[in-house]
Amino acid sequence: MTITITAFERSPDGGKGLARDTRVRWALEEVRQPYEVRLVSFRAMKEPAHLALHPFGQIPTYEEGDLALFETGSIVLHIAERHAGLLPDDANARARAITWMFAAVNTVEPPILELATATLLESDKPWYAARLPLVEDRVRDRLNQLSARLGDADWLDGAFTAGDLMMVSVLLRLRSSGILDEFPNLAAYVTRGEARPAYKRAFAAQLAVNTGKPPTGQ
Amino acid sequence: MTITITAFERSPDGGKGLARDTRVRWALEEVRQPYEVRLVSFRAMKEPAHLALHPFGQIPTYEEGDLALFETGSIVLHIAERHAGLLPDDANARARAITWMFAAVNTVEPPILELATATLLESDKPWYAARLPLVEDRVRDRLNQLSARLGDADWLDGAFTAGDLMMVSVLLRLRSSGILDEFPNLAAYVTRGEARPAYKRAFAAQLAVNTGKPPTGQ
Repeated sequence: MTITITAFERSPDGGKGLARDTRVRWALEEVRQPYEVRLVSFRAMKEPAHLALHPFGQIPTYEEGDLALFETGSIVLHIAERHAGLLPDDANARARAITWMFAAVNTVEPPILELATATLLESDKPWYAARLPLVEDRVRDRLNQLSARLGDADWLDGAFTAGDLMMVSVLLRLRSSGILDEFPNLAAYVTRGEARPAYKRAFAAQLAVNTGKPPTGQ
Repeated sequence: MTITITAFERSPDGGKGLARDTRVRWALEEVRQPYEVRLVSFRAMKEPAHLALHPFGQIPTYEEGDLALFETGSIVLHIAERHAGLLPDDANARARAITWMFAAVNTVEPPILELATATLLESDKPWYAARLPLVEDRVRDRLNQLSARLGDADWLDGAFTAGDLMMVSVLLRLRSSGILDEFPNLAAYVTRGEARPAYKRAFAAQLAVNTGKPPTGQ
């Protein structure tokens, strides 16, 4: 059955790979599943046809036969459960990999989202400059803990899993802030993720949408 | 094998059920699995023994034989996958229920966390009063969308699932703000969750820890 995902017709980041369809593209590339992409404009995202697929009016969505999903974490988990390459075979290691997926989206991403929100929506407010260091320090608190756990390992728990895919994707949003570089082992971890051939193919595919040029071969 | 979870020795909410162990207790009660609780002080949560279990120094954790997990969403999913009662049998309906779990923690909870953070950590700041309405409106945006999707249904997608358990738990954190009551169908949805016998048992158990009195029979 054909897999169809949705992505921004024009990504707010201009193709830096921060839109969440990149996470789903990456997962599909890791497990070598072909997929089609339906591009959605900002206006169409808030219209009934898209809201029926995604009640919060966002991208990506995932359609496969009569199954329709939203939420990147859920889509990546669905892909990882059905195709080899993103979850360990051992049941306990598999549960721990899923734990890292939830840690990425529910523990590490919220302060990073708060930092993004401050910059995107409150940079014209009188409190912006005074408040920013507080928000940045809340991100640092989480990164300190994550850095201590990762240590000098390549990935969070043994081989690369969907947990690493989600964590690297979440940390990538921090690069422009400079905070990631304060934690050399986390910066190297993100670079390691970006160096994976599957990530490179996913990144090139989303960039091609935004430049209008076909992806170069990887 | 015995299931052991961790919880606050003394919850910051004094037993209102907002600490995240309540979510895990609720899941275990829905599937009728007995469990033991190890209470952890704020100081012990930041010490190496607990950090080995939970790298972010929080509760709850979940131990069963040689498996150790953290992250509430992951623990609830693990319980739901192994015991009947929290996920549908149909594969597509199951994937959609997991989608609602991720929607709860990664789409609905982040603005609610931001509101909690503003109130807990920034109420003494000069910008607090001017900024609060912006943060509240971001919560309302999400609740508007969730309310539209729920409509007059009892649960988010057919029968009660782990997705509802997580969503009700996330929305409960809003009650004291008054915002939940602006959305009558969501307020009724939360009340419906709280009326479940399994929730009542979970709530009574966490309250007993905080009052020092044994839970009353349900």
